[in-house]
Amino acid sequence: MGRTLVYPKGSSNTVNRYKHRATYDLGAIHSIVNSTQVLHVSFNPGPSDPFPAILPMIGQMGSFEYPSAGINEPLDCYLHGYVSSRVMNLARDSENGLPLCIAASKVDGLILSLTPNSHSYNYRSAILHGWAKVVTDEQEKLYAMKLITNSVVPDRWDHTRVPPDRAEMSSTVILKVKIVDGSGKIRDGGVSDERKDTGNEEVTGSVWTGVVPVWETFGRPVPSPENKVTDVPEYLTSYVSSKNDENRVHAEGAVGVQLPPEEQH
Amino acid sequence: MGRTLVYPKGSSNTVNRYKHRATYDLGAIHSIVNSTQVLHVSFNPGPSDPFPAILPMIGQMGSFEYPSAGINEPLDCYLHGYVSSRVMNLARDSENGLPLCIAASKVDGLILSLTPNSHSYNYRSAILHGWAKVVTDEQEKLYAMKLITNSVVPDRWDHTRVPPDRAEMSSTVILKVKIVDGSGKIRDGGVSDERKDTGNEEVTGSVWTGVVPVWETFGRPVPSPENKVTDVPEYLTSYVSSKNDENRVHAEGAVGVQLPPEEQH
Repeated sequence: MGRTLVYPKGSSNTVNRYKHRATYDLGAIHSIVNSTQVLHVSFNPGPSDPFPAILPMIGQMGSFEYPSAGINEPLDCYLHGYVSSRVMNLARDSENGLPLCIAASKVDGLILSLTPNSHSYNYRSAILHGWAKVVTDEQEKLYAMKLITNSVVPDRWDHTRVPPDRAEMSSTVILKVKIVDGSGKIRDGGVSDERKDTGNEEVTGSVWTGVVPVWETFGRPVPSPENKVTDVPEYLTSYVSSKNDENRVHAEGAVGVQLPPEEQH
Repeated sequence: MGRTLVYPKGSSNTVNRYKHRATYDLGAIHSIVNSTQVLHVSFNPGPSDPFPAILPMIGQMGSFEYPSAGINEPLDCYLHGYVSSRVMNLARDSENGLPLCIAASKVDGLILSLTPNSHSYNYRSAILHGWAKVVTDEQEKLYAMKLITNSVVPDRWDHTRVPPDRAEMSSTVILKVKIVDGSGKIRDGGVSDERKDTGNEEVTGSVWTGVVPVWETFGRPVPSPENKVTDVPEYLTSYVSSKNDENRVHAEGAVGVQLPPEEQH
């Protein structure tokens, strides 16, 4: 009760710029990762390639050992996505796992201030470092597949043709990343300008300052030509509408104002 | 006329999965990068750290040497953002530049098909590899600062207090990345299922399939409490409204349908 778990601060995850925006709380960091549609995952292809690689992947924090673990408890990151054979082979061949960096970032608003230098975004971003291994246990793989499918649309798994058959199980590859550290950074609020400009009437009289909220919108579900189910299911329509509200409220809330709905455009 | 420049295919940038979705066209790749609000930039912190690092950064493709170069011509990537001293020092200390990987990804829709395995996203993603150096030429730095500011809101630079003063110039760091290769991947269209499921009436009769378009929305600009300019300027309102239309049309267009505006929710 009242205890907050935090990731240890090391040289690779300590935030040195705008420290007051940094967080090491597991709950805050895991929440950013879990609400991000595409994670950016970086690894090193090998000694002959000077460039790190980045793959866009779908992933979720979870715990197969303790499925009831909360978002603010220690969790693993399960990844599924456009897994080139390169990263899979590297993870398979590594004894202790492949070292990965996982990044999640969301823009919540454009900060338009008096000078270009004080322009910014409202945003949430998270970084995790960990060791990735291929999941070989069938039950754990199923757990992760369900977790990831339901992160796209809650309850989607149980509303599709499951379980996956043998061919589907063997063609799916899931990486489990044991997290060693992480950090998050959150910027919210409004414009921040320097006194040299806020005290200059020529500047304040000519430059509009404020925030443009930014959020992700889901459109009306479009049935496929082959779809045979007449009505769009309730679990989908309610997710689309509640997520749209939540995203808009979050972006506007980050500015520090709450506009009445009729003032939306 | 009619010639398309492409990035050379090497081991580090060749797409091996879903090859038909791959592109090596400079124009397609640069467009994805330039329309992405946050780029994910990966580098290696040093031999003592096993993990690559990722920074969320703001960046744009451009050419200081040939400012009139088109989007489909060879361009450099200019980066500005939450540049920890670590990446700046590494770039400064490297003789040939710091090897970076730059990633840009956008989700355009959720593909909800009969089985979890055939679920997907409509998306656009791009990867660039290149060598980063700190920009030292004052004119080039100004060129990049203007380019990046105007990528947040077109024409914003000329509507703020410019030019930056001496302190602002020295506190701003811009990285210039000489690109060596790149690749893009675009998925659009609808649901794709296997015959074993599309031929099973029990499955098709119970699983709703279709696409949920996804796009980025800009809200109504919120003036700061200190703002003295009465009306939201036209360059901002027109950008917000045209970008919202463009984003929605793109996401819905990716599905292959065009809904009349009154059918939007």
